[in-house]
Parts: sequence; C-alpha cells; structure tokens
Amino acid sequence: MQTATVTMDVAPKKAPPIPRNGVDTPAVVETIFGVVANQPELAKFQFRASNQWMTGTHSRTTMKGFFGASGEQAHHKDFTADGDHPAVLCGADQAPTPVEWVLHALATCLTAGIANIAAVRGVTLHRVESKVEGDIDLLGIFGLSKTVRNGYQNMRITFEIEGDAPPEKLREIVEQSRARSAVYDVITNGIPVEVSVKS
Amino acid sequence: MQTATVTMDVAPKKAPPIPRNGVDTPAVVETIFGVVANQPELAKFQFRASNQWMTGTHSRTTMKGFFGASGEQAHHKDFTADGDHPAVLCGADQAPTPVEWVLHALATCLTAGIANIAAVRGVTLHRVESKVEGDIDLLGIFGLSKTVRNGYQNMRITFEIEGDAPPEKLREIVEQSRARSAVYDVITNGIPVEVSVKS
Repeated sequence: MQTATVTMDVAPKKAPPIPRNGVDTPAVVETIFGVVANQPELAKFQFRASNQWMTGTHSRTTMKGFFGASGEQAHHKDFTADGDHPAVLCGADQAPTPVEWVLHALATCLTAGIANIAAVRGVTLHRVESKVEGDIDLLGIFGLSKTVRNGYQNMRITFEIEGDAPPEKLREIVEQSRARSAVYDVITNGIPVEVSVKS
Repeated sequence: MQTATVTMDVAPKKAPPIPRNGVDTPAVVETIFGVVANQPELAKFQFRASNQWMTGTHSRTTMKGFFGASGEQAHHKDFTADGDHPAVLCGADQAPTPVEWVLHALATCLTAGIANIAAVRGVTLHRVESKVEGDIDLLGIFGLSKTVRNGYQNMRITFEIEGDAPPEKLREIVEQSRARSAVYDVITNGIPVEVSVKS
C-alpha cells in the first residue's frame, strides 16, 4: 500500500476537470479530446452572415445558421448587428464602424479563449478586461496615397487579468489564448477572400 | 457662342455631386478632395474598443471614443456588442461567435464603400445584399493538428446589387469598394497585432 501511495505522489492522477469560470470544463475536455480527437471531421465548420444595406453607409447583418459537427446548426435566435461610418466621415453614426468590429472580433476571441484555457488549467478568474486599438491612415481608402495601405497599420490589445494564480500563470493563459485564437490568426496572417457579384 | 457650346460638348464640366443613396455626396467629395487632400494629417485615425469578460466564453465590448481629424472624436452614444461561443462548442450562445464578427466587419465595410462609391459615380442604388461565409477547421484551435491553421481557411462574399446602372457598372462599383476596403485589406493581407498583459 505504501509503494502504491508513493507512486501516486510521483505521478499523481490528474484531477478531473470541474466547471469553472462559467465554463463547463468537463464538456469542453470531453468534446475536444473525447469526441473530436476521434472524429476529426466533426471539426469542420462554416460560419455565415447575411448583410442588407439600409441607407448611406449603414447596413445590417444577420447571423444565425452555421455548419459544424457534421450538420447544420443554428444559434438559439437570429443575432443582428449594424455597421455605419461616423459623422466625421460623413456617415450617420448609426453603429460602430466596420474597423471597430474587427477590434471587437479580436477581443471576444481572445477573451473566450482565456476563460476556456483557465478553466482547463484549474485557474479561477475574477476579472478579465482588455483595451484594443488600431491605427489607420485614411489616405489609403480615400485614394489619396499610392503607398498608404487601406487597412490598419497595426493593432494592440492589452489585458488586465485577475484570478487565483500567480501573474506569470495568468500571462501564460493569455499567451496560450493568443496562440490558439482563430481571429488573431486571421488578422495577423491574412486569408484568401473571394468577392463576387451574383448575376 | 456655337464654338463655346461645342467645346462644352467635347469636354463637359462634370456635374456637381448631389446627395444620393442616403449619402451626403457633396460632403464626402469635399471632405476627401477639398479638405483631407490639403491636410493629410487629418486622415490619421485610431479606433478603440474596450472589452469586459462576463462569464464563460461570453464577453462584451464597448465602442465609443476614437481619434481622427486631428482630435478626439466620439460616437453619439456608447455602442456595445457581445461575443460568445455556440452551444455546440460548449458556450452559452449569448451572442455571435468572434469569427462571425469578422464576417460582419467585412460585409459592413464593403457595403458602406459600395454606397459611397455609387453616390460619387452618380448611380442610385435600389438594393444591396450580401452573403458571407468562412470555412474553418477547428482541429487548429483545439490543438489537435500541427498543420491546420487556427483561423478561417478562406472566406467568400457574394453580393446582389440593383441600381439604375448596367450590371457591368454595378460590378465595377463592388470591385472599387473591394479595392479600397480597410477590412478587406486587414483580412487578406494581415497586420501586426501586439498582445500584452498589464502588470
């Protein structure tokens, strides 16, 4: 019995995950390592959105259905969101600008990852806040410069994070979220986008 | 008199822009070519967002202030939007996913550009709708593959556009919007993003 106990001390059995940070940790672990690891085709997703022009620079997007886990899925309701240009750019300021929505996408992606990763690592979070900003020179989109790009020249996101772990461990969680973030990958590495007009 | 008339016919003076498509076309033209062309420093903008973790994978972003036109600016109100993971990915489905927000950013950017460009080109639009979709293999973000990327592998956006111009001219407007889109540039070419944790 003592030998067994020593063996246990040297290589302790990992504690089973428990719900934490509002994350159903057992379900996350089972989904990834129990289900998808054995059926990788379940990981193929397609997300979709429909957009409708309202007036001026104002348009509205609806997000509901998507494909994943080998079948059609749907959010529990239609989500809608608008975009517009601000008054200083001659818009009606009915909604955030398209480039602000990119900041939102990045912040929500990294923050969701932080919550999931912390839960799996047994860290209880108390607070996660971030500020994200991007610098853009509109000479590009105005067509007033041949050298200035259209998009942001750079972006920065700064987190404040509190939890029941040392600062270094909390930083490692943020870093792991960055390393596994879909939106961070899209924004930093770029992806092919096809723009077409239906005849 | 006749000579003068003929000269006018050969090189007619461009008609002054008029408001169209809900766009204050004269203001857009004056802002870009009358003001910013002569004071390029006015084109330097910084957009910002603040995000707060709610619980689980759910977080909320606030967008209000930004810098541009040589000064601090603000939307007429705080805009807020949420992000979450869907139920099939163990989230609470309180909002669109971060990767859907990227689709929204692209659609609103291209659509705003279409409205502005059509207005400047004297084309009245009747309808602009688009569907955007992105394919993503979650083996990347799940850490189950070393070769699958985290982000979308590709995206497609398809427009339906109606206006008082021939199809070819409407297509050229969509193409010009693509060529001058900030979000299209960010998504296709990528930008440097700095992620940090405040001590």
